[in-house]
Amino acid sequence: MTRFAHSVSALRSSEIRDLMSLATSPNIISFSGGMPGNELFPLDMIDNVYQSLTEKEKQIAMQYGPTNGLPILLESLSGYLEKKGLPIKKNRLMITTGSLQAINILAKAFVDPGDNILVETPSFIGALSAFRSYEANLISVPLKGNGIDIEQLKLKLETTHPKPKFLYFAPNFHNPAGIIYSEEVKLQMIELLTDKDIPLIEDDVYSDLYFYEEDVPKMKNIKTIDPEGIDVCFTGSFSKILGPGLRLGWMLVPEHIYQKCELIKQSIDACSPSFSQVIADKFIRSGYIYEYTDNVRLEYKKRGLAMIEALEKHLPNYVSFEKPRGGFYIWLHLPQGTDSTLILKKAIEKGVVFVTGKTFDPDGVKNDYMRVSFCNTDVDVINKGIPIVADAIREVCG
Amino acid sequence: MTRFAHSVSALRSSEIRDLMSLATSPNIISFSGGMPGNELFPLDMIDNVYQSLTEKEKQIAMQYGPTNGLPILLESLSGYLEKKGLPIKKNRLMITTGSLQAINILAKAFVDPGDNILVETPSFIGALSAFRSYEANLISVPLKGNGIDIEQLKLKLETTHPKPKFLYFAPNFHNPAGIIYSEEVKLQMIELLTDKDIPLIEDDVYSDLYFYEEDVPKMKNIKTIDPEGIDVCFTGSFSKILGPGLRLGWMLVPEHIYQKCELIKQSIDACSPSFSQVIADKFIRSGYIYEYTDNVRLEYKKRGLAMIEALEKHLPNYVSFEKPRGGFYIWLHLPQGTDSTLILKKAIEKGVVFVTGKTFDPDGVKNDYMRVSFCNTDVDVINKGIPIVADAIREVCG
Repeated sequence: MTRFAHSVSALRSSEIRDLMSLATSPNIISFSGGMPGNELFPLDMIDNVYQSLTEKEKQIAMQYGPTNGLPILLESLSGYLEKKGLPIKKNRLMITTGSLQAINILAKAFVDPGDNILVETPSFIGALSAFRSYEANLISVPLKGNGIDIEQLKLKLETTHPKPKFLYFAPNFHNPAGIIYSEEVKLQMIELLTDKDIPLIEDDVYSDLYFYEEDVPKMKNIKTIDPEGIDVCFTGSFSKILGPGLRLGWMLVPEHIYQKCELIKQSIDACSPSFSQVIADKFIRSGYIYEYTDNVRLEYKKRGLAMIEALEKHLPNYVSFEKPRGGFYIWLHLPQGTDSTLILKKAIEKGVVFVTGKTFDPDGVKNDYMRVSFCNTDVDVINKGIPIVADAIREVCG
Repeated sequence: MTRFAHSVSALRSSEIRDLMSLATSPNIISFSGGMPGNELFPLDMIDNVYQSLTEKEKQIAMQYGPTNGLPILLESLSGYLEKKGLPIKKNRLMITTGSLQAINILAKAFVDPGDNILVETPSFIGALSAFRSYEANLISVPLKGNGIDIEQLKLKLETTHPKPKFLYFAPNFHNPAGIIYSEEVKLQMIELLTDKDIPLIEDDVYSDLYFYEEDVPKMKNIKTIDPEGIDVCFTGSFSKILGPGLRLGWMLVPEHIYQKCELIKQSIDACSPSFSQVIADKFIRSGYIYEYTDNVRLEYKKRGLAMIEALEKHLPNYVSFEKPRGGFYIWLHLPQGTDSTLILKKAIEKGVVFVTGKTFDPDGVKNDYMRVSFCNTDVDVINKGIPIVADAIREVCG
């Protein structure tokens, strides 16, 4: 067995697995998952898409495709991303088996065991697992309400030797923090990183799920700016705007990075599922993707606002949070030093599950936060479950 | 960039990519690919499967699933494999994104950079790429007509220090060699490896595609024997018995290896496509899988026998080959020292493509072999293309 196979990640991942299995028990209210509600999938649209497939398209769906993705989907997805302002022509697009695979491939391209990389605290557990699996040394930089803490980032850049191999961040409706990066923070990041030979991995899977149209301009990606002197690797996913069961994501990266990534993908799974790709292509070309994201955006807004309201009503006043303006998550800040695992245990006894703070801590320690998701429960369930969460917090924190 | 990203694999893989792109050009006859013919996919069956899906099943298809696979598919696939004699109950089954991913995950579980592993010469290029991507040191053992060369294997086991992390082999209708391992060779392998703490990776994706029912008993897997004192990791795939576009494979491995592999898969792509898994499950439960493999088995036999006949008729007598008894491939042995790349160039000028021998050589050197595939061309095309291959060989070898 390799060093990795003996590493501590094992423990952490089994804890998550246990939580996830609880979360799918029918008798428990789950604020833990990051998956869309089953009832929200566009099944009628998928039916129409399937019915519209020609024999030739079905053959393509059943066959191997190119490692970087089916040409039809690369074309339609390019159009979709270009409309959002992403610099398709100056970069290369690759279809991946979920955006987690895109992050995993980038990690493999950049990280040798022991290499330093920069990540946010808190950060997406999937990315942390991928980075740990390549034995990266995670250097964490705190998040604030408007994005990464620029002073801390500056400090880490000055004090981290050897120089970090990249900075991984999620600018919009952060998982788990729920925040949006401000334009100012993004501009400061660009200033700090220009000509430093430290690429950015910009992971943006929730940005279509905004509650307020007015936020769209300020959610502009650093990749959209594509600043000179920084290699920005942009990753995205169909999981939140179509369905995670298709396992389709993408990366949009500079040519020289793309070349390495294609080679790596070739040895990981040869290509992403053609069947899924044919469906996703039609979903874009038919325009369903716009209709569907308009629909779910409204539904997630309803759920998110209901959860904010319930939290404001029921939480003790020593618990604070940034109100999300989109996405799936609310990140609760408990009194300093609280062990949210104790709260989780109480909550599970009462029939509610969420995710503890340390799960998202690159160092696996800081536990005075907790994440509640509003994506996978309707308003009634939210109104039933949040008072229980509040009770569990009170029982532990007094 | 990592050491891997700078490695020689880059060159080899781009050569393959170039060949593959030629192979898909409409004006060229391709004996190069390892994919089923487009016209052979069970599209009507897939239509019926899709039409039979309930709303709930479609929701499952669109949602994340457990890392190790959807419970329904694990159940139906277990039944399918158990019927073949595989020891389901004593092992753990995991669904992977193609069998290449299963091999990749096992490589990650076992290999630290510089570790020795044992592979056949020739060997499946996908596996070699995966092993190289983890910087394994490939120790090659020659193949004979009845399986791995036991004397050579014995020698390598005695002389390889540190001890190899595993032996990777493909017992049935080998890619590219086309051969079946004899029972005797398998028993000798077991004898050599018992209590040596060197696991086997037994890659068996072609065994359903036999030409002769009488061969089935002797194709029994080492995993089916599941000998005491050897950890046998068995990998398989839906690619040849349903469609590679679904990207579904599996591994059947001992519990302690499974635990590491599940953790690794979690960070690679979280789970394999649920959409594909729901379809594959129904394909098994409906019994279509048996009907379909019966059909394609006959068709591949027709093609294989036609290619054997054409080769026997047209090849110069200094080219020899083992007649395949199933699978997709024929492995031509050219006069010693021949550079099959020269033959390939001639053949491409004449409108036919195949794969050169060195592609499958772990050391990337030995080129006096070439692989012709009969899976993806019908009998007429075979009869048109093989004389051209023979001409190209004559032009180079005289």
